Formats: sequence, structure tokens, C-alpha cells
Amino acid sequence: MKESWSSLDTFEPNFRPLVVIELAKSTKEETREWLTRRIADKKANGGAQLLVKPLVTEDGDQNIYLVGASHFRLLLGAETVGLVKECTDNSMRTFTYSSRKTFKGFADDNQSFLTMAECQYIIKHELENLRAKDEKIIPGYPQAKLYPGKSIVRRLLTNGILIQIFPLHDQEELKKLRHTWYGRVKIGYQPLDEIRCYFGETIALYFGFLEYFTFALVPMAVIGIPYYVFAWEDYDKYVMFATFNLLWSTVILEVWKRLCAVMTYRWGTLLMKRQFEEPRPGFHGVLGVNPVTGREEPVYSSIRRQLRIYLVSLPFVCLCLYFSLYVMMIYFDLEQWALDYHKENESNFSSLMLFVPSIIYAIVIEIMNRIYRYAAEFLTSWENHRLESSYQNHLILKVLVFNFLNCFASLFYIAFVLFDMKLLRQSLATLLITSQILNQFAEAFLPYWLQKRHKKRMKKKMYSQKTDTDLSLVEQVNLEKEMGTYFGTFDDYLELFLQFGYVSLFSCVYPLAAVFAVLNNITEIYSDALKMCRVYKRPFAEPTANIGVWQLAFETMSVISVVTNCILIGMSPQVNALFPDSKMDLILTVAFVEHMLLAMKFVMAFVIPDKPRDIQIKLARLEFESLEALKQQVRATDYKASSK
Amino acid sequence: MKESWSSLDTFEPNFRPLVVIELAKSTKEETREWLTRRIADKKANGGAQLLVKPLVTEDGDQNIYLVGASHFRLLLGAETVGLVKECTDNSMRTFTYSSRKTFKGFADDNQSFLTMAECQYIIKHELENLRAKDEKIIPGYPQAKLYPGKSIVRRLLTNGILIQIFPLHDQEELKKLRHTWYGRVKIGYQPLDEIRCYFGETIALYFGFLEYFTFALVPMAVIGIPYYVFAWEDYDKYVMFATFNLLWSTVILEVWKRLCAVMTYRWGTLLMKRQFEEPRPGFHGVLGVNPVTGREEPVYSSIRRQLRIYLVSLPFVCLCLYFSLYVMMIYFDLEQWALDYHKENESNFSSLMLFVPSIIYAIVIEIMNRIYRYAAEFLTSWENHRLESSYQNHLILKVLVFNFLNCFASLFYIAFVLFDMKLLRQSLATLLITSQILNQFAEAFLPYWLQKRHKKRMKKKMYSQKTDTDLSLVEQVNLEKEMGTYFGTFDDYLELFLQFGYVSLFSCVYPLAAVFAVLNNITEIYSDALKMCRVYKRPFAEPTANIGVWQLAFETMSVISVVTNCILIGMSPQVNALFPDSKMDLILTVAFVEHMLLAMKFVMAFVIPDKPRDIQIKLARLEFESLEALKQQVRATDYKASSK
Repeated sequence: MKESWSSLDTFEPNFRPLVVIELAKSTKEETREWLTRRIADKKANGGAQLLVKPLVTEDGDQNIYLVGASHFRLLLGAETVGLVKECTDNSMRTFTYSSRKTFKGFADDNQSFLTMAECQYIIKHELENLRAKDEKIIPGYPQAKLYPGKSIVRRLLTNGILIQIFPLHDQEELKKLRHTWYGRVKIGYQPLDEIRCYFGETIALYFGFLEYFTFALVPMAVIGIPYYVFAWEDYDKYVMFATFNLLWSTVILEVWKRLCAVMTYRWGTLLMKRQFEEPRPGFHGVLGVNPVTGREEPVYSSIRRQLRIYLVSLPFVCLCLYFSLYVMMIYFDLEQWALDYHKENESNFSSLMLFVPSIIYAIVIEIMNRIYRYAAEFLTSWENHRLESSYQNHLILKVLVFNFLNCFASLFYIAFVLFDMKLLRQSLATLLITSQILNQFAEAFLPYWLQKRHKKRMKKKMYSQKTDTDLSLVEQVNLEKEMGTYFGTFDDYLELFLQFGYVSLFSCVYPLAAVFAVLNNITEIYSDALKMCRVYKRPFAEPTANIGVWQLAFETMSVISVVTNCILIGMSPQVNALFPDSKMDLILTVAFVEHMLLAMKFVMAFVIPDKPRDIQIKLARLEFESLEALKQQVRATDYKASSK
Repeated sequence: MKESWSSLDTFEPNFRPLVVIELAKSTKEETREWLTRRIADKKANGGAQLLVKPLVTEDGDQNIYLVGASHFRLLLGAETVGLVKECTDNSMRTFTYSSRKTFKGFADDNQSFLTMAECQYIIKHELENLRAKDEKIIPGYPQAKLYPGKSIVRRLLTNGILIQIFPLHDQEELKKLRHTWYGRVKIGYQPLDEIRCYFGETIALYFGFLEYFTFALVPMAVIGIPYYVFAWEDYDKYVMFATFNLLWSTVILEVWKRLCAVMTYRWGTLLMKRQFEEPRPGFHGVLGVNPVTGREEPVYSSIRRQLRIYLVSLPFVCLCLYFSLYVMMIYFDLEQWALDYHKENESNFSSLMLFVPSIIYAIVIEIMNRIYRYAAEFLTSWENHRLESSYQNHLILKVLVFNFLNCFASLFYIAFVLFDMKLLRQSLATLLITSQILNQFAEAFLPYWLQKRHKKRMKKKMYSQKTDTDLSLVEQVNLEKEMGTYFGTFDDYLELFLQFGYVSLFSCVYPLAAVFAVLNNITEIYSDALKMCRVYKRPFAEPTANIGVWQLAFETMSVISVVTNCILIGMSPQVNALFPDSKMDLILTVAFVEHMLLAMKFVMAFVIPDKPRDIQIKLARLEFESLEALKQQVRATDYKASSK
């Protein structure tokens, strides 16, 4: 790999390019100079104190810069972002430069103490925290206003001068990772620690959750198979399966919290202090004083945001939900009409006509989902949230509700209005399987194929026929900058969420759903891994301690599934036969059982501790130590004062 | 007040007695000397560095000691316990001795910077943290073993050498407080800040909650009155009342959290760091090493505790619940028998007999409650919890479940098994009103009367006829040490909890309950205030940031009340008349409405933020400042390192 950097190595032997900055081709010379000077400038002068080099491509353009940093600078940055690392005594502690010798694996010449993903995260953090001092505008762009304390990179991004910042892949590391991850056929766990080192905690946690969820579904799948094989129709067996399913889903969600705590403790993010969040790039408002920081920044009244949320977004979402239901009703009418038509005519044409409504509906749903997604993004952006996290939460909530309705409304209608269990089972199976196949295709294999074709063309253009690992740096950067951007784990979690819905909402009608989910997830792991390694640009690592709002989403789904399953069991003819005289007793019994199950779920969620005991003890020990340190400090003052 | 301390003032002019230590009369001279020496010894030598004086009573006994501390010592103690105080710039900050000048109202000669309750809390904390160094036993008591780090005071308490430690009343302050609190008839708020200064946060928060709860019940009471006056029986009016009630109860519990945050922010406890909890006095086990502190202390396996909880306590509680239900069934049988007997005989004797079952049942319930309380305390103590907080939570849970059943089981039976709404209304009214009257009597007036009689006798014995304020210190201590001990706010909250149950569980049947609750609570404030000021020993202040497990208990009750009210409305003849053909539609509608209400409750609890915006901003500012301070520190290292 070294040889390819030869042009750079000549003048700075230990410059290791970590992050790529791509400017617009038309960027003025003046701006380029100012930006690189600011990035390279000393901290004391308000710079980021990073190393920055232009990447000279063959056509002589100079709009791409490589950013790196000295090992010492990275260590200081690790302290600034508050990285937590393992000490020689096996405890996890916040890294500080002065205590660096106490950390495991630290040596002044050991470049691998910080993983590459951590280094890139530090550089991203430092770049984003490069702030305007007394500049009023971006040099060369009088329309791009600055004020003291404004993040320069964010202003450059919003003004289109900066096209993108992305971290570079490390071809050798990637090759190793690919090999252990999906390169060979094997039964076993994913190399989560390696994934975390390469892609960061958010993505590692997603793959961890995917793997855990797959394993957790196995018992359901195993129990579900005989129902299909022997065509069991006994009501007590279905009740047993559903009850097991409901309690199991509570248990797995609680146990996941514990596993997640174990993993993120090992990775250090469980202990990492939340950084103060800067306004997100799209946030705008009148320049005022932030009451928290006392800094000048755009301010937007929270009441106006609330008004926008409750008076515009909420009604709009409700309208969309209503519209989606309306479309569903039209679909059912069409379906009925097609059936009637087929009954009357009994021709080849009429039997073909039977499929038309389903096809139209599937297409319309897909179109609605896409349009709604844009609308949701537009609305959430218009709500003008100050924080990226709050923007994400509002967006997730909007998309989640709509997708839930779109996916499950027809099933609810079939189950609780048409009372047609056979149709329900059939629709459930069709929806689940087709959505799984389509997803895998659209999500990984299609982009992979496109990417591969693009790469070949690129290589042809450059007249070189080397394999991946001996690409020159210029080629590598040019290839990677054209790759698609991975927009976070949202869609991946959404897919799992909907799958969880298919498995648990109507589990007592279709026990085989868990089997399909398990099969899908095994290939999903491979296709998602392929997607991360081959299709998309490397994403920046994001430290995180849990799967956030998705935990709540999954828990809500498991509460809803208690209600649906109880109703389904109550409606089954076998249960109805038990109460031949009184429908009322039946309903009351079902309602009672449902309430008991819900109560049991809450008690279980309450009784199972969120963190395993050893993690609790480790956390308590750290807290105790910091309290003791405080006391020592007090005692020192104490002696001093009393000896006066 | 000063004159009464004359005997002490002669040799130490600024000794202000704050806390009283009472030793057993038989305590050996050797032990007394050792203890006082340890308390007075310098911090550097492992002492508590407090001032301690024997109180010589008239009969020459020397088993009572007064403990105080210099102003300087108290300020250092305030730093140790982590008190949070207001700064001159109106922000709340953790007090440190070195930054003392930045705090509001601080002056080196201003003794009132710390409230008396805070001073007493500091002294209690310092006494409890007085630890054995190399002593193997308590001098004079070879059976009272010590090990390095063992709290001396706790060992003295468990061995019966130390009888009690309690804080002294301040007669003048108390008189002022009594006057503003309940001395004059007035409509207005309680002086919560003064109560907090005198009794500490836990008690002030109880009175704050009591007051808030009373105000919150007023709208329900106002809406409830016309139902009684005009004898409204329209179903839609009842539904409206119940719906309002259910949503209202969610709102008030959420709003309380916000108010509580406002109050505890002002008091500084919202920001106060939780101290590391020592093992509770009764905790025992094999001497081992605490994995958190690394100190030697008794260790008890958590698995054995879990076994005791789940294999002994849980079955026992279930058995008790079953037994309580069984007794209730016997009561209903007796009631029926008495009715039949009366119908047959129609004599004076038989009409008297009608009351017998109720009286017997009331007495039996009271006896069961008391026995169960002892059993619960014994069991929870036997479960051997390491922490006082965990002991309290387990005790509260046990007592709560049993009391809930005992109070409401008969009402549930009448409502949902006998379907007798008239009897339900009647029983509810009787239970509510009699329990309120009995409680107020047994809780405050009876002890007050006993206390007054005792005081008179004491005074007579001492041949003095002075009023409270000019009691000598010796007399004051002798009076106060005989007063009853206030065992915390448990029973007071329990009373409110059960009252909340009476008001909300069957609100649609008896809207007048809220009226009685409001009336009761107004007098309750006065009787509880009287109890605190006159009847009991002054309790130690306990810093707290919320009402803890009671918030959860009240929220659970409000969830249960959704279910009960929906069923009651569903059973009402008016609603039944709406569904003349199909009972099934009725039940389904009721179940649907209930689920919607529950969902609405959860959404509301989720949407209403737990802390008001300004408190959120203040907390965020503090967090931001500490992050910035950390960065400054990093930057300092940064400069230093880069200038190398």
C-alpha cells in the first residue's frame, strides 16, 4: 500500500490519509487556500491542527484534499471526544493524554492504539468543530455569511462549496474483515468487534441486533415447523404457541438490552459522556443567544416548532393514514369485482384479471411509501429541529406509523373485519415472502451489480487492470467518491421492525413466519455485509450505547401483538366451541387473559434488570471511584485549611 | 435562647448543639471516652472533627451528648455531602469550600448560609461515616466486633450501646414555622421552602405533594357536586365524568413531575449527586470484599437473596392475599346470613345483628393489616438487602399490594361479581369516610394529646411552668428524647395512595368521593403539620429529588382505574340500553374504548416532558459548562504538549 502514496511520502514520511474532502470544481483558489490554512493551523490560533494535502489527479484538478493527523494530535483528539478505552487493570476509563500509559496496548510508537474508525471519527469531530473567528464571510463567497463560533464546514456544506467529506477505506483491513465476515461459508457469530473497529459502534450494533434477533427467532421457528408439517389445528396448541410467542418476545427484547450493555461496555460507548449537540446543518433562525451555551447562533422559538408539529405535521400524517386506508378499501372492492367478474366469465382473461388488483395495490403502496417518505423528510425538516437527534426521532416516528399502517392495514382488515383466517394466512405469507425477496434484491444485489459495472468502467478508463488491493491512492479516492452514500441504519432497522410485525402480530395464525424470517435474516446478514463493504462509501463511525428509539418501537410492537393474538385466538372456531352458549363469556375471558398477559409483560420488563450484574458492579465501581476522588480532593483542602 | 445554654457557653462561646446522642445508661466509662475522642478527633487521625459535649442532667447521669461543629467544619462537610446551593449569578452549583465566595448569601460570619436541617444532615453523615481504623472491638464490649472501615455508629446501634441519635428542635424557628404553616387560619399555599429548611426535602416534598394533590382534586370535586345535587343518572354524563377523570389523573401525575423538578431544582437536590450507599444497619453476611469499593465488609450472595424473595416471600405474599380474599368471602356470607336472619325475625336484636358482620370485618382487616405489616418487615429484613433503598422498595411493594387488596377487594367483589351499584356506592362512601376520620384521629390527635399530657407531667416533675420557648436546654433534650420517632413518609403516602384509589377506581359510580378527599386533605395538611411540629421527634433531613416509587404506584393505580371505570360504564343499564340486541357489541365497544384510553394515557405520558423547559435549559447549561471545562483542561495540556 505504501508505494501508492509515493508522491506524498517524499515530503512527509508518516502522513496517513484518513479522510477525504471534496470541494466543488469551481471553488475559488482564495477559498481553497483559506480552508486548508484553517485546517492546518495550530489549535492556539483557532485551527484544527490537522495535516491536509491536495490530491493531484491526472487531469490536474485540485478539488480533492486528503486529511490526516499526527499520532500525538489524534491522541489529544481522543481526549476531546471523550473516548473510553480499556486500562491495564481491565477497567474501562475515559482516555486522557496525561494518563495514557495506564491504558492497555498503549505505546508511544503504537499507531494501532486507536482504531482507524476512531481516528476518522476524531478528524470528523475536529473538522466540524472548526469555527469562524472574526471572518464575516467565507473568503471568495460574499453570500456565505459567517459569525463567530459558526462551524465552517457546515456553512461550506450548506453553500455547496464543500461537496462531501468521507473516510477512506483501508483496503487491506477491509479484505481481512470481508474474509472473516462473509468470505467463507461458516456457522458462527459475526466478528462484531472487528466490524466495530472498522465501521464504528452504530453499524456494529445493528449487525449485533440482526444476529441476536435471528438467534432469538430460532426457538419460535423450531416450534412453528410442526404446526405446518402436521397441520395442527388444535386450539390449545395455537394458544400455547401464541402465549409462548408473546412472553418470548418480551424476554428477547429485555435480554437484548443486557447484551447490548455488555457489548457497548466492552466498546467503551456505554460510559462515554454524551457530547453537547451542535445545531444540525439545516437548522435556521434569527441570530440570537443560545440560552445553554451563551454563544451566538440561530434561535428558533420552541412554541412555533410545536405549532408546526401539532397543527401541520400531525394533521398531515393523519390525512395520509386516512388516504392509505381509503386506497386499501378500493383495493378490496377491486378484488371483489375481479372475483365476481371471474365467476361470471370463467375465461383465461378473467383469471388473469384476478391478479390485477394485487399488482396495482402493490405498486400503489410502493409509490405511496416513496412519496410519503419525501413528504415526511420535507415536513420534519420544515419543523426546523435544532438537533439532529430530535430531527431523526420525529422522522422515524412519522415513517414508522405510515409504514406500519401500509404493511399491516390490509392484514388487520382481513383478520378483524372479513374474519377470513385462510385469506389472512395466505396474504401474510405472500406479503412476507415477496417483501423479503424484493428487499434483498433492491438493497444489496442491484447496487452491488451497478457498483461493479461502474468500477470496471472506471478501471478501463484508467487503463489499469489491477485487483483491488493494489489500486493507487488516486484511483481509490476516485472510485470511492463515486460510491453511494450509506444513509444510516434507518432502513435496515425498519425492515427488521416490519419483519417482527409479520412474525408476532399474527403468530397464532401463521407459525411458519418465524421460519421465513430466520432464513431471510441469515442471507440478510450476508447481503448487508456485502452492501457495507462493497457498495457504499465507508460511513463515519458513530459512537452509540444502544439502538435508541428502535428499542421502544419493538416493545410497542410486542404490546400490540398481545392484543391482536388474543383477539385472533378468541375468534378461532375451536375456542368458540368451548363457549357454545355465551359469546359474552368468551369475550370476557379473552379480555381477561389479554389484560393478564399485558400485566405479565410489564412485570417481566420491570423485574429483568437492564444491565447484567457484573456490568452494574463495574459501573458502580467507577461511580464510587469518582466520588472517592472528589472526597480525597475535599480532604486535601481540609488539611490545608485546618493547618492554617 | 442563648441564656439557656449558659453552662455550655462559658467554655466555648460558639458551640451550638445540633444533634443529640443518647447512650444506654449502663455504658462503660471506657466506651464513652473512646467514642467522644473519636468524634472530636481530627479528620487526619480518622476522626469526625466535630464538637461533642456531655449534657449533665439533674440526676447526674452522663449518657447524653450534644454534638455540634464549627462553622468552618460544617462548610467542609457541606462539600463532602455534595450540597447544591444557589450562586450569585442565580445558577445552582455544587458547593465547594474553595468557591464559597461565589455563592449567594455566603459570608464568613454568616451562620445562616447553611440551614439548621442541612447542618444536622451533615453531622449525621459525618457520624455515620466515622469508621473503625485498627480497633478490633468496641472498647469495653468484646462481643461488639469491628473491622477496618466498619461504621462505628452503626455497630454501636446494632449492639444497643447507642440508643438513638436525633436532631434538636430549634424552638424559635419552630414557633415561626408553626405560625406561618398552621398557626393562623388562611387560604393559601403552605410555606414549603420554610418546611424544607426546617425538616428537609423528603418531608417538604410530601407536603408539597399533598397540597398539589388537593388542588388537583378540586376540579374533579367541582364537577362531581352537581351529580350528587341533581342526582344525574344519564349515562353520557357519567361517561363524560369518567373520561375526564381518567385523562385528568394522567395529566396531574405528569404535571406533578414537572412541579417536583421545579421545587427540587430550587432546593438543589435535583442536581445533587447520589452518594454511594453504605450497607443498611441490619445487613449481615460473611466478611468479604465488596466488588464495588474494594473494602472489607459483609457480603451476601445476590442469588441467595433472589431465592429468598421468589421462593419464600413471593409465595407468602400470595398466600396472604388469598387468605385476605377468603376472609372477605366469609364476610359476605356472614352479611348474607345476617340479612336472612333479619328478614326472618324482624326484631331489634336482628337489626342490630345487621351491623355485626361489618364491625367484625373491619376489626379483622385492621388486625390483618397490622400482622401483615410485621410479617412484611420481618421478611424483607430476612431477605437481607444490602441497601436501605432496596429494603424500602421491597417493603413498600409488599405492603402496597396487600393494602390495595384489603381496601378494594370487597369493592371489586360488589362491583364485578354482585353487580350491585347501589351497594357499591354505599360501601365506597362508608369506607372512604370512616377510614378518613379514623386515620386523622389515630395519626395526629391521639398522639398529640398523649404527648401534651406527657409534657405536662414532665414539666410538673421538673417544677417549672415555663412556656415552650424558655425551656432550658436540659429540659428540651429530656422532653424531645421521649417523643415518638417519625418513621418516614411511608404511612402518609400510603394513605394518599388509598384515597386516590377510592377517588379514581370507581369515580363514575361515586363522583362525590373527590369532594370528601378534598375536605379530608385540607384537614390532613393541618393534622400532619401538627404531628411533625408537636408530636414527633424532629427527623433528620433527607435530600431527595422526587417522591420515588410512589410516582410509579400512583401511575399504576391510574392505569387500573381506566380498566375498572370502563367496565363499570359498560355495566350501567343506560349503556346496556344502547345495545339492546347484542351484548357482544357492547363488550367489544367497551374493550375498544378502554384500549384507546390506555393508549392515549401512554401517549400523553410520553408527550408531556418530565421537566419544564427552563429547568431543562438550566440543566443543559450546567452539563455544557462541565464539558467545556473538560475541554479547557484538554486544551491546556494541548498547548503544553505542543510547545514541547
